Order: sequence, then structure tokens, then C-alpha cells
Amino acid sequence: MKALLPSSVYPRIVVIGGGFGGMTLARELRKAPFQVVLLDKHNYHTFQPLLYQVATGGLEPDSIAFPLRKIFSNQSNLVFRIAKVDAVRQEEKVLETSIGEISYEYLVLATGSVTNFFGMEELERHAHGMKSIPESLDLRSLILQNFEDALESEGDNRSRLMNFVVVGGGPTGVETAGALAELQRHVLPHDYPELDLGQMEVSLVEAGPRLLSGMSDKSGEDAKRDLERMGVKVRLNTQVSNYDGKIVSLAGGESYHAETLIWAAGIKGNVIHGIDASKIGRGTRILVNEFNEVEGMAGVFAIGDLALMSTKSYPNGHPQVAPAAIQQAENLAENLIRRQKGAPQKVFQYFDKGSMATIGRNRAVVDFRAIHMNGRLAWMSWMFVHLMFLIGFRNKLVVFVNWVWSYLTYDKGTRLIIRPFRRRNAVVPEKQPASMSV
Amino acid sequence: MKALLPSSVYPRIVVIGGGFGGMTLARELRKAPFQVVLLDKHNYHTFQPLLYQVATGGLEPDSIAFPLRKIFSNQSNLVFRIAKVDAVRQEEKVLETSIGEISYEYLVLATGSVTNFFGMEELERHAHGMKSIPESLDLRSLILQNFEDALESEGDNRSRLMNFVVVGGGPTGVETAGALAELQRHVLPHDYPELDLGQMEVSLVEAGPRLLSGMSDKSGEDAKRDLERMGVKVRLNTQVSNYDGKIVSLAGGESYHAETLIWAAGIKGNVIHGIDASKIGRGTRILVNEFNEVEGMAGVFAIGDLALMSTKSYPNGHPQVAPAAIQQAENLAENLIRRQKGAPQKVFQYFDKGSMATIGRNRAVVDFRAIHMNGRLAWMSWMFVHLMFLIGFRNKLVVFVNWVWSYLTYDKGTRLIIRPFRRRNAVVPEKQPASMSV
Repeated sequence: MKALLPSSVYPRIVVIGGGFGGMTLARELRKAPFQVVLLDKHNYHTFQPLLYQVATGGLEPDSIAFPLRKIFSNQSNLVFRIAKVDAVRQEEKVLETSIGEISYEYLVLATGSVTNFFGMEELERHAHGMKSIPESLDLRSLILQNFEDALESEGDNRSRLMNFVVVGGGPTGVETAGALAELQRHVLPHDYPELDLGQMEVSLVEAGPRLLSGMSDKSGEDAKRDLERMGVKVRLNTQVSNYDGKIVSLAGGESYHAETLIWAAGIKGNVIHGIDASKIGRGTRILVNEFNEVEGMAGVFAIGDLALMSTKSYPNGHPQVAPAAIQQAENLAENLIRRQKGAPQKVFQYFDKGSMATIGRNRAVVDFRAIHMNGRLAWMSWMFVHLMFLIGFRNKLVVFVNWVWSYLTYDKGTRLIIRPFRRRNAVVPEKQPASMSV
Repeated sequence: MKALLPSSVYPRIVVIGGGFGGMTLARELRKAPFQVVLLDKHNYHTFQPLLYQVATGGLEPDSIAFPLRKIFSNQSNLVFRIAKVDAVRQEEKVLETSIGEISYEYLVLATGSVTNFFGMEELERHAHGMKSIPESLDLRSLILQNFEDALESEGDNRSRLMNFVVVGGGPTGVETAGALAELQRHVLPHDYPELDLGQMEVSLVEAGPRLLSGMSDKSGEDAKRDLERMGVKVRLNTQVSNYDGKIVSLAGGESYHAETLIWAAGIKGNVIHGIDASKIGRGTRILVNEFNEVEGMAGVFAIGDLALMSTKSYPNGHPQVAPAAIQQAENLAENLIRRQKGAPQKVFQYFDKGSMATIGRNRAVVDFRAIHMNGRLAWMSWMFVHLMFLIGFRNKLVVFVNWVWSYLTYDKGTRLIIRPFRRRNAVVPEKQPASMSV
């Protein structure tokens, strides 16, 4: 067996997670006197904001992911390994990982968030999350498989297969419900002339009193109106209490039939073992100070979705979005370099770049400070910003081609069933534990 | 339970398989007085000639596949179902399928071919075929995973991980070996600066005395020379007798270590149960007359790779390539229409459109009648012809963008590990039976 990592004269910073935070941090340290070790369970960075388009057949998975090795191919102080980290032993400054033990001088936790089912186990077993490329591909296969099965079903069985319930009225829920409504209107009627697509029902269920609670009131209203015009049944103030794979139970006692429930109602921090419970706050996020350092764990930092930095403007932490992760990574990289030079640390300052959500063709909402936009201009801004953030020129080009194509033809290019799917009436294995998932 | 298929006043033709043959036949019958039922185990048509580019990271799977429902969305006399056909009961004119029994008036077997391991079971268990999109994705994951594992290995273990043996000197073997050599030269050194890519070895092993035996002598020689210039070890007159997942045994007694063996050394007809052994000829192909009708099975036809029509020019059947399947499908469609009108049947005549294989950047060989081409012109012809045959304008565009991109940057765009892989030293399930594969 070879030594796990090459040796270096520089102090080692281990970064766990190649999302926006981890990737940015590693990149910013490219000229710094550190050995940067980046660990991720995948060999690629995922552009999470577009996962819903993979799930609904608009994009290929390869266009929204980018090989991490390629991002860092010219960075000589970086070592990348595919590894799952199980635990941290801070007293020894060692990580337990799937490829062995790795020691660190500094540790940056950038493991992001996972779907939060709020302890509802039966729901978790049957609902579909959309936090990774494999999950999105599974969902795509399932959606299409439902329509294949509907051809051979009648009555309640058929309507259950054609009912799609999206839970959670944040951007992911809104965007997914909108994309399903577009499939219903423009794509599926051509593919399934034997089915009456009027029977298909897309519901968006939100526990709170409005959609897009992180955005302006106007955006929430616009999104609701646009979705309803597209045929989505929007239910506010409605809580889902259970789902057994066939029946969605609402907190009020009501229930309805659906074969597919997409859960976009919450996320929680993806915490590894070895972090003391006292350091974990609301939303399972790790409490950090204004320098993103974990309280009481010298040299250990958390950034992005995982980090909870309570400030005057953001007492419950910053929004769990890409710009916050990127900005924290940039600030932390600078502080790590300053620390080596003995210079004073810089307090993190969040610059709110606004927020946006797309609903469908020519329909989106954008908030930027006091400005609110909707309609085609908002939609084009949404596309422009997402193309800008997408890593890699080839990806930008392929995504752009796909979007133009969809716009002109009202079609979605990719609807191949290429992953195993949960087939009704068949004995299938239970979901794999997260560490086995690919 | 609903009736499996809609009723029709027209006689039913069931076509099994949505490859080049089945797809063309169904399309040609779009205005004919038949109910055409197309069955395939996938919901998409696969452009098999480019599967090797999916396996070697050049293309996304979605760009070389096309949803079958979309191809037929305007064809009102066609019904498509995802189904696996288990057997035919000709005396009752019934098919046994995964979705139930389906009766037919006419039956067209267009199930193509599967990898032929010539009864070597241990080899079959460990070798990788490349006949479908899931297989190609698995192979891509495995190739990349090998390099990740090589980082933590030494000596023999490391060289085994970096040795790739391609068996079979036909177009698929030549193209795959060439693509691996390009990865070795242009892509992997940037991704794995910790590894010495000079240690990587790509071998192409062929049992016969030359490469590309279906093409001209000149093409075989050019391909060998080009591959050797690219660093591929070409071994002719060499038979592989076994492979246990670690050691490749050659018929002469020699052996060497390789973690990956790609088997492109043979195909055989994909025959369903219920076809009498007397009707099956060389290469497990079904014996048909000059109208593609199976001898002694009235109203049952076989076309494409599966069909063996012995003629004066082709005593062992036509080449198992797309143009032969397409031409047989066209002739059969015409004959089925003629039959309804009481017109005489047309004997199948094969028009040889020549053949081609690509080796790498600016390197390809093309034979068309007496003309032989190689080098850049041949390479551009190869790309042009493959883009022409690819189904769907969006696919052509995305593939074209990828090819131009790779040409300009010497890079391959997609190298994500997104499928489960067979991890060394881990307990993994045996390969799934074919009917379970996705």
C-alpha cells in the first residue's frame, strides 16, 4: 500500500466537499503556502440549482456537473481524493475516511446540506429528494416509468400514477412544479396520445402561508399566479404528515393518492461524526464565529449551507445559497493566508446578490434589493446568471444549446430511462444507505 | 387492469426491438393499413456506433440515444410499449412478454445482437461489454475508478489498474483502443499528475492475422500503424483463453495483469425462446429467405444483425451493420404493404455503402468500393456520416459541439463517475441477469 497522500513541506488544509464553498476555497488557495487536500464522495462538482432540470428531462447530467480533477488540473498544491468522511477526531487532528485516516493542520467542513424529512421515516422511505445527480436521474426514470405504467392501468391506479405532489414552496419546489406542468402541457401529450393528460395533476404543497418565503411578497404572489395559470394546484398552509408510497396524508386529516412525492420542503446540515452536539444549532448547522471557525475547535472551520453564523442582520444564519458559500470561502481563504503571515483576521460580511426563481417559459421572478422583476426579462436574467455560474465553457455551451432548443420547439431533449427504477408490484431492495449511494 | 393494447381494425404487426432495423420498419409503415406495435426493453433508440465514446468520456449518453416515443409521436398507427419479450408461441401467434401476452398477425424480430463470449463463463463474468448505454456508463465509471484506485496502489497492483486490454480488432475494438490512447495522452496526465501515465498500457488483442478484417487490407494496415504510433500495443494472431478479473490468459500460455478487459471480439444473435434450433444458423442468427421471412414460420420475419440470409455474394449472411438492417427493414416494409395489396414480393438486394472506422484525431480509415481513404479526410467523412445517421437535430448539434470542443482543446468533456462501479476489495453483487439490467 502506498502512502495515502503525497508529503509536503507546507501545512495541510483538508477541505471536505467540492460544492461551491469547498471548490472556491481550494481555488482561492492556489498560490498559498499550504497543501490543500480536497475530499468528495463524487469525482465531480454538481451545479445543484439545475438538478431539477435533469429530473424533468431538460438537461443531461453531464452538463451540470464538472470533474473536480479538471478544475484543479493546474493547481500544484492541491491533492484530490474520492472519499467519504466518517468522523473527525479533533484531539488528534485526524479524519476517518473510506480510504483511511487523514491528518490535518486545518480542517474546512464544506459538506453542505442533505434533505430534511423532519423525522418522518415512512415518508423518507417513499419520497424522492433531488440533492444529487443520481437522485435526479432516478426521479427522471420514475416520472417516465409512471406514464408507461399508466398505459396499462385504469381508474384510481391510473390517476395515482399521473398525480405528482411537490412538497415545499421554495425555489426548488416552485421550479420543479413548473417544469412538471410544462411536461404536461408540451411534451407528454405527444408521447402518450393514449392517455388523457388532463387527468395529470401537479400539486405544490407548502406549509407556510406563501410561496418563496425567502423572496419578496410580490415574487411569492407572481409565482403562485403563474403556476396556477400553468395548471399547478398550489396549496398553502398545508402540512404533509405522512406518505406511504401511495397515499399522501395532510395534517388536517385529508389525504390523496399519488405515486410520486417530491420532497423539497427542507434541508439540514450534513454533519460528520465527532462534532459535539453543543456546536450544532438550528437546522443541524454548525455554529461558527464571524471568521467561520467552529467555536471551541481551533483550526476547524465550516462554510456554506453547513455553517450557522449568527449576525445582527442574519440572526439565524445566512441564506443557504451558492453566493453565501462562495463569499464565506473567499473570506476564509484570505484569513488562512493572513494567519500564515500573522496579519489580523477579517470578519465575514455577506453581500446579498438578490434571489431568483424560474417558473416556466418566459416566467420567472427576480428580487435584487428594492427591485422586483417578473416575466420574460426576469426569465432571461435567470438563464444568464445560471449560465454564468455553471462551471466550464463546454457545459455553458451545451446547456445554452439545450435551452434554445427547448424554447424553439417546446420540447425537452432528454427523457431516457437509464437508471434502475422502483417498479410497482415488484420486489425491490430498500434504499441504499447514504454512504453506498453513487 | 386495462386492455394491454388499443384495439384496431387493421392487422397487427408486432416489431421487437427499436434499433436501426425495427425503428426503420415501423417508420416505413406509417401510412400502411396495419396496427404497428413496437416493443423494446428501453424507451429509447441507441446509436450503437458511438457507445465507445460514452465509455471513454467523449459524449453524454443522452446525445446518442433518442426517445422512441418522440420518433413516433406523429404516427397514429403505432403503439409503443416498454417490454421484455420472453418467448414466442407461433402456433397461437402469441408473444409472452414482461407486460403480458400479446397476439400478432405478423411478427418482426429485430432484437439485434448481444456480446458473444463463446462460452467462456469466467471471462464473461469479469469482462466488460459495450452493447448498451448502461454498459458504457459502467465502463466509463470503472476506467476512471481504476485511476483513483491507482493513486493508492503500488507495483503490480498499480500497473494492473493502469492496464487496459481490448479484445477484438473490429471497428469497435480499434475505436475503443484509440480513444483510450487519447485519454492516456491528452486527458489523464492533467487529471492525475501524481501518476506516471507512461505506465499505462493499452493493448489491442486480435485472434486473426489483421485488424478490421471486414475492411480492405490497406485499412487494416493503416489502423495498426496509427494505433501503434499512438502507443497502443497491437497483438495479432493472439487468442484470449480466460480472464479472472486480474489475469488475462492467452491461448499460447502467456498471461498478463489487467484490471479491465473490454470484450469486443464477437456478437451473436439475440434470439428469444420459441424459435426452433433448426432455424438458427452460424453466429446464433435466424435463417431467413430472400424476403427476410423465417423458414417454416409463416408471417414471422427477422431483420438486421439477427437475420442470416444466405445469398451468392453473402453466403454467411450480410454484414451486421446499420445499413444492412435499415435496407432490410425498408424492403420488408414494402413487401408487407405489397402483400396486403396482393402484389408480388421483392427480393432483398444489399447495397454496400462501404465501411469506416476512426482511430483518433485526424486518423480514420474509409473503404468505399475500390476507394480507400485515411488521415484527416477519412476522419472528417467518418464524423459527417455519423452525425447524419444520428437521430434528432438536438443530438446532432450537441455531439457536434462536443466534437469541435474536444478537437480544439484536446479534452474530453464528460468524465463523471455516476453509475455504481465494481470496487476492488469490496463485496459486490454478481452481474444482474440481462432481463434485470437497465
